[in-house]
Amino acid sequence: VGTQVVHSQVKRPLELSSLYDDLEAAGQRPATRVLVNTVVPAPAEVAAALGVPEGDDVHRVERLRLAHGEPMAYLINHLPTGLLDLDTDRLEATGLYRLMRSAGITLHSARQAIGARGATATEAERLTEPAGAPLLTMRRTTYDDTGRAVELGDHTYRPSRYSFEFQLLVRS
Amino acid sequence: VGTQVVHSQVKRPLELSSLYDDLEAAGQRPATRVLVNTVVPAPAEVAAALGVPEGDDVHRVERLRLAHGEPMAYLINHLPTGLLDLDTDRLEATGLYRLMRSAGITLHSARQAIGARGATATEAERLTEPAGAPLLTMRRTTYDDTGRAVELGDHTYRPSRYSFEFQLLVRS
Repeated sequence: VGTQVVHSQVKRPLELSSLYDDLEAAGQRPATRVLVNTVVPAPAEVAAALGVPEGDDVHRVERLRLAHGEPMAYLINHLPTGLLDLDTDRLEATGLYRLMRSAGITLHSARQAIGARGATATEAERLTEPAGAPLLTMRRTTYDDTGRAVELGDHTYRPSRYSFEFQLLVRS
Repeated sequence: VGTQVVHSQVKRPLELSSLYDDLEAAGQRPATRVLVNTVVPAPAEVAAALGVPEGDDVHRVERLRLAHGEPMAYLINHLPTGLLDLDTDRLEATGLYRLMRSAGITLHSARQAIGARGATATEAERLTEPAGAPLLTMRRTTYDDTGRAVELGDHTYRPSRYSFEFQLLVRS
């Protein structure tokens, strides 16, 4: 586990898996720094994704995910209230999907969009990148087995450290 | 089909489908400009992906894909020789996958990686973006039903015009 591993890029499978679990499985020693853990009135976009009225209370969690001590991803998540206990210590000790599962939530599916854009000043500072640096972005709405939206994730990744990899089969 | 459509972003499903077909289906009036259509000695990476000896002849095709007359993607493809007739006029009239199918090739699967990075000077010029502008990247090796690699694609997309969208199901 030397310099080469530290700087290697995580090639992440496109499955409804947790970044934390994937990093741990890859021997990347993930760590999480919780930057924000609060309740806010749901902005319109968040409300629409989570199926709650605009302005209703929702959890807002901002986390920095590190691998081998280096920032890899900046994760903003909104969740409905009343679903699970979002304790900061627990959020720093494990991944959000594990917390959901241990709260009895059965994850079923997600809609994801992957794009790219330049880092905002905040993102650049969090990820130790120059302002405007290219970032890989992922927006995801995750649903449980009752069809309820259980989270909206807005994630930015440092592309030197992170890419999505997957296999496709021809539509039959 | 006005200004709003011209500047809308294409949200492309993650399937083994053709960008050309997807744009056409979305009413985006795709067009292709062939920039390079030649045979080159296979560089090491291309040779490894296509399963041919390094330095063997391979086709190199560079295309600009436009939607409503605006550059959307810069597509570099390498293909084994002897598979199909890569006529420039035909490449400008349709998509590469359609040409493959009409040559009797049955596409089966692909390995893809999606990432982001800053535009090189060449990419920026082709895509009418500033140098260093964030680009969405896709590298794909496509296999036919005999397991043979039939193309290696290195594609860059303007992220203001293009994103990948898809649904995921939990691993059971």
